Amino acid sequence: MTEYEAFAVELARVAADVTLPFFRGDYAEENKAGPGAFDPVTEADKAAEAAIRKAIAARYPDHGVIGEEYGEDRPDADHVWVLDPIDGTRAFIAGLPLWTTLIALRTEGRPSVGIIAQPYLDEIFLGGPSGARLLRGGGETGLKVRSCERLTDAVLATTDPDLFTGPELGAWTQVRAAARLARFGCDAYAYAMVAAGRIDLVAESGLKVWDWSALVPVVEAAGGQVTDWRGGPPSGNGQIIAVGDPRVREQALVAFRRAAL
Amino acid sequence: MTEYEAFAVELARVAADVTLPFFRGDYAEENKAGPGAFDPVTEADKAAEAAIRKAIAARYPDHGVIGEEYGEDRPDADHVWVLDPIDGTRAFIAGLPLWTTLIALRTEGRPSVGIIAQPYLDEIFLGGPSGARLLRGGGETGLKVRSCERLTDAVLATTDPDLFTGPELGAWTQVRAAARLARFGCDAYAYAMVAAGRIDLVAESGLKVWDWSALVPVVEAAGGQVTDWRGGPPSGNGQIIAVGDPRVREQALVAFRRAAL
Repeated sequence: MTEYEAFAVELARVAADVTLPFFRGDYAEENKAGPGAFDPVTEADKAAEAAIRKAIAARYPDHGVIGEEYGEDRPDADHVWVLDPIDGTRAFIAGLPLWTTLIALRTEGRPSVGIIAQPYLDEIFLGGPSGARLLRGGGETGLKVRSCERLTDAVLATTDPDLFTGPELGAWTQVRAAARLARFGCDAYAYAMVAAGRIDLVAESGLKVWDWSALVPVVEAAGGQVTDWRGGPPSGNGQIIAVGDPRVREQALVAFRRAAL
Repeated sequence: MTEYEAFAVELARVAADVTLPFFRGDYAEENKAGPGAFDPVTEADKAAEAAIRKAIAARYPDHGVIGEEYGEDRPDADHVWVLDPIDGTRAFIAGLPLWTTLIALRTEGRPSVGIIAQPYLDEIFLGGPSGARLLRGGGETGLKVRSCERLTDAVLATTDPDLFTGPELGAWTQVRAAARLARFGCDAYAYAMVAAGRIDLVAESGLKVWDWSALVPVVEAAGGQVTDWRGGPPSGNGQIIAVGDPRVREQALVAFRRAAL
């Protein structure tokens, strides 16, 4: 494991210490007091990002940070950490352990280390220069995408079809109809399953830089690819496709490309 | 814990020993050989149900059993175990740890003990005469639904809106539009979250007796209710609504009742 990979794991554990006590925590009543009232997810999100930022500042004071909650800090530095302390807010609220903490290190303009962590499951999916692996219970397992020649054999995932615009939904519906099965409600966890060789294609839109940066090294180090809906590098337009086998993407792009921004 | 509750927990552990080695097991290639080839989920399902049936026969030879894989055996006995070894087949296939093992004991025609178990999470949600609790890591936590006065505050779940017929989808869409948020892809795990006070309403259709029997004691012992889409007892028509607070169901039934079978 490289120095930065090890540090990213350390940051995931720092975040877990903050987020886990909030998950299924005893706040149900306060949470229902309506707009402006105590929001436990935002609280957990903010507290976790603050803890991660503090750990980065202590260890690498020159590094930049981009986070969902506290914005940009030296975004043009050589090394920039890109953070989403709780991806999958709705899963978190509903008590479902598929929300994740996303941590990426961006070097030379692209994500070089990435982590998708689910602390209730004690899972850290790590991708970087030394490969892709799942850390769990003190042990580790290598991650490898699976081959999938045809879209008709593919297992798909997206978080919620209702997040798509009209043309996007049209493309998704067409691709879904061709595929073996589709699964909803996974958020970033679906990309970890691409790296683990269980899901063949994930398509989403509206993703921010902190939503997709960490996914790239995890999927790529496991042998997969992450692109936009034209097959180019992931960009600011938020349309993302991750695949284990590029042949599936090429077949899916026939539909997705028509809805590409 | 009553004798039957303790035995149901024992059965969940018997099933876990069978299902867990299959989950994310090394069968990706065989699984893609097409129809008629080795199907790991069905294999796991069958092996787990066989193991549960064997344990029941050894302990309570007079009890009946109804299972998804091996059919009915003395379904009119005083005590009938109703089993779904792997609920959430698609989650299982996609590597997502929200599939569950469902075990119910039916006495006097209705489910009196129920278990929703997720072995990868080491979670057993148990409901019965001595209450509702979550068993995890050697400890246990009581389960209690939360109150929710208005549908507009409610967190909803269903497995996949595409499983609804036209009128059902119309009802779901109307209820979803009124609610605070909706979550997909949970299968029976969503009912455990109703019992845990995290989800307020789950609505599904097409459920078989082994899909819904185990949910009833878990949700009811936690203070919630499980009915059909008319507000009556769950029945063979497969339309099920579970709520933590009946006030939310009454508001949702305005829509669901129009699509009730």
